[in-house]
Amino acid sequence: MTDPILLTPGPLTTRLETRRAMLRDWGSRDPAFIALTAELRARLLAVAQGEATHACVPLQGSGTFIVEATLATLLRPADRLLVLVNGAYGERIATIARRMGRAVDVLRWPEDRPVDPGRVAEALGGDPRLTHVALVHCETTTGLLNPLAGVAAVVAQAGRHLLLDAMSSFGAIGTDLRAVPVAAVMASSNKCLEGVPGIGFALIERRMLAAAESVSPSVSLDLHAQWRGFEQDGQWRFTPPVQVVAALVEALRQLESEGGPAARLARYGENCRVLVAGMRRLGFDLYLEEALQAPIIATFRMPEARPLRFASFYDALAARGFLIYPGKLTQAETFRIGCIGAIDRGDIARLLTAVEAVLGEVAAA
Amino acid sequence: MTDPILLTPGPLTTRLETRRAMLRDWGSRDPAFIALTAELRARLLAVAQGEATHACVPLQGSGTFIVEATLATLLRPADRLLVLVNGAYGERIATIARRMGRAVDVLRWPEDRPVDPGRVAEALGGDPRLTHVALVHCETTTGLLNPLAGVAAVVAQAGRHLLLDAMSSFGAIGTDLRAVPVAAVMASSNKCLEGVPGIGFALIERRMLAAAESVSPSVSLDLHAQWRGFEQDGQWRFTPPVQVVAALVEALRQLESEGGPAARLARYGENCRVLVAGMRRLGFDLYLEEALQAPIIATFRMPEARPLRFASFYDALAARGFLIYPGKLTQAETFRIGCIGAIDRGDIARLLTAVEAVLGEVAAA
Ligand SMILES: Cc1ncc(COP(=O)(O)O)c(C=O)c1O
Ligand SMILES: Cc1ncc(COP(=O)(O)O)c(C=O)c1O
Repeated sequence: MTDPILLTPGPLTTRLETRRAMLRDWGSRDPAFIALTAELRARLLAVAQGEATHACVPLQGSGTFIVEATLATLLRPADRLLVLVNGAYGERIATIARRMGRAVDVLRWPEDRPVDPGRVAEALGGDPRLTHVALVHCETTTGLLNPLAGVAAVVAQAGRHLLLDAMSSFGAIGTDLRAVPVAAVMASSNKCLEGVPGIGFALIERRMLAAAESVSPSVSLDLHAQWRGFEQDGQWRFTPPVQVVAALVEALRQLESEGGPAARLARYGENCRVLVAGMRRLGFDLYLEEALQAPIIATFRMPEARPLRFASFYDALAARGFLIYPGKLTQAETFRIGCIGAIDRGDIARLLTAVEAVLGEVAAA
Repeated sequence: MTDPILLTPGPLTTRLETRRAMLRDWGSRDPAFIALTAELRARLLAVAQGEATHACVPLQGSGTFIVEATLATLLRPADRLLVLVNGAYGERIATIARRMGRAVDVLRWPEDRPVDPGRVAEALGGDPRLTHVALVHCETTTGLLNPLAGVAAVVAQAGRHLLLDAMSSFGAIGTDLRAVPVAAVMASSNKCLEGVPGIGFALIERRMLAAAESVSPSVSLDLHAQWRGFEQDGQWRFTPPVQVVAALVEALRQLESEGGPAARLARYGENCRVLVAGMRRLGFDLYLEEALQAPIIATFRMPEARPLRFASFYDALAARGFLIYPGKLTQAETFRIGCIGAIDRGDIARLLTAVEAVLGEVAAA
């Protein structure tokens, strides 16, 4: 039996070479692993051209852990965070910051509308207490791409700091830190970088990171201390998931071989175009306007004409080797299909054949 | 080239089958992975006979993360924690609790002395504000085994709650939760369980866990919410390191095949006896009194007669395929050699041959 193809926002289908990089044991304080960690940090920084300005701080745990650690490390008790929300991951940022006792304001948009930089500028102009702004680059809730450049410009103009949740865009949708002012970019190993899950990382402006000593109320989630550890002896403060690190380094080497984020985006774009066109032909409409849909994960409406329960649709596709993803919307009956991971248009074409067969069965039943 | 043998407190040498369990991709919300998570939680609970009283809550991240999450989830602002310290990991518990703003008292012993239950009873008797007590089972700093049963008895007698850092003992040195009153046991995947690093877990009294809603100041490190997630739909709240989970389940199946913790302890005990006898023969004294030394990781003094720099000793042994571990003591020049992982007395015998050869080279130089 072959493994299923994962059409989700992660964990994803990875390359066999990436998983094979996990077949060895590493001493976490051995020079060989110190060199691997240095390569990891350098490659991640290079993906976003942050070498001159930012530092890369990897952290054990899932993406949510790196988001919380970044907030914990950079927000002081007197700071005030403005969170731009048009989906579940924006809401989560606000929840995390509030739970740790930080002052938070929220600007909201409907789940099918992008964040509007004009409203952000207004809010910042109207409240001098706001020190930081948080934006989700690709809102994985729907797959909507928010206007990073526009938001970054108004935040910089207002002299505030932008914290970017780039979890589902990093490695595919470019973030050039030389050109776009972002104080901290947060992402994880298991989405567009095509590693396995287990670590997140933040690229943080070095000056800001250096000034953040003892700010974090959490020892585990203190990125200043984590960074100091790497700078001192190249080692992780606490036991790193060595195999996950090895897999991510292998995945980053493959990203380079593929031609970098631009080439990867082209592949995902192709996956997404084939998917959307094929699904449309089969009667499934995209939830978002096409111009707002990032080629990361696409949200489809359940067709009103044919009644189709998600659970049986999922099972029927799983039986054919494809794992799709439930919707995360409060408003509409939807499901999601990922375009990312070590998959190509051939896999998408095979999925479409499977969807067609499943629809045929339902019609016959 | 074969992989080095890791003689450290983890990450360790694991079995090839354990690493091979990481060769596949899993959908983290797929029924197959939900079943794997259920098996993980059930097996971990069974290792400590906690089925009737405790719940197993695994968490992404390293061992320190599960320690912090347990403190964050169980200590309320009005609580007061007594930490029993005779090494670096006890100190770390105090640091973590203080950083999160909880009231902390510390009782200290020298690094080569076990915690004394009598002094704990006295301290609890003298301060009714103390609600919780934290103990490190095996202090990995030296390898000293603290008297769990004695401490647990006085804590229970005083009506307080014991939090046990069993990071380096769990899976080998038994903790029978039917017999020993412990509110929370914390450990991780990559020590005596012989999995790969990337997750920790706590076994927490169910009543206590159920009452801990919204106590944690951290969303990521909230074990009540993490537990509710598992109970609701069997899924992890946030992306799990699926390959690390698969490896740990495989390692737990092997623990059972080996004969459970008792058989594992016998193997480690044999490793440790062969190691200590052999090292003694080569001129290295154990730092601890032998009766205090757990068969987990042994601390040796640098011989005063022969000058030996740790860095060159390490490199010379690494060149022969053995990775040892630096000391973590402030008082004495020491180094450590682990007895745990997928290794046996044959590996220890080969290490001793290598140590002898290295000493011969130094003498000749
Ligand atoms: C935009 C975004 N932020 C945060 C997260 C949280 O990541 P994790 O599930 O790894 O904690 C995700 C995961 O899908 C995401 O897509
Ligand atoms: C007793 C004890 N507690 C806590 C830890 C911390 O674990 P980690 O390094 O996985 O964060 C260790 C690690 O060696 C340990 O031995």
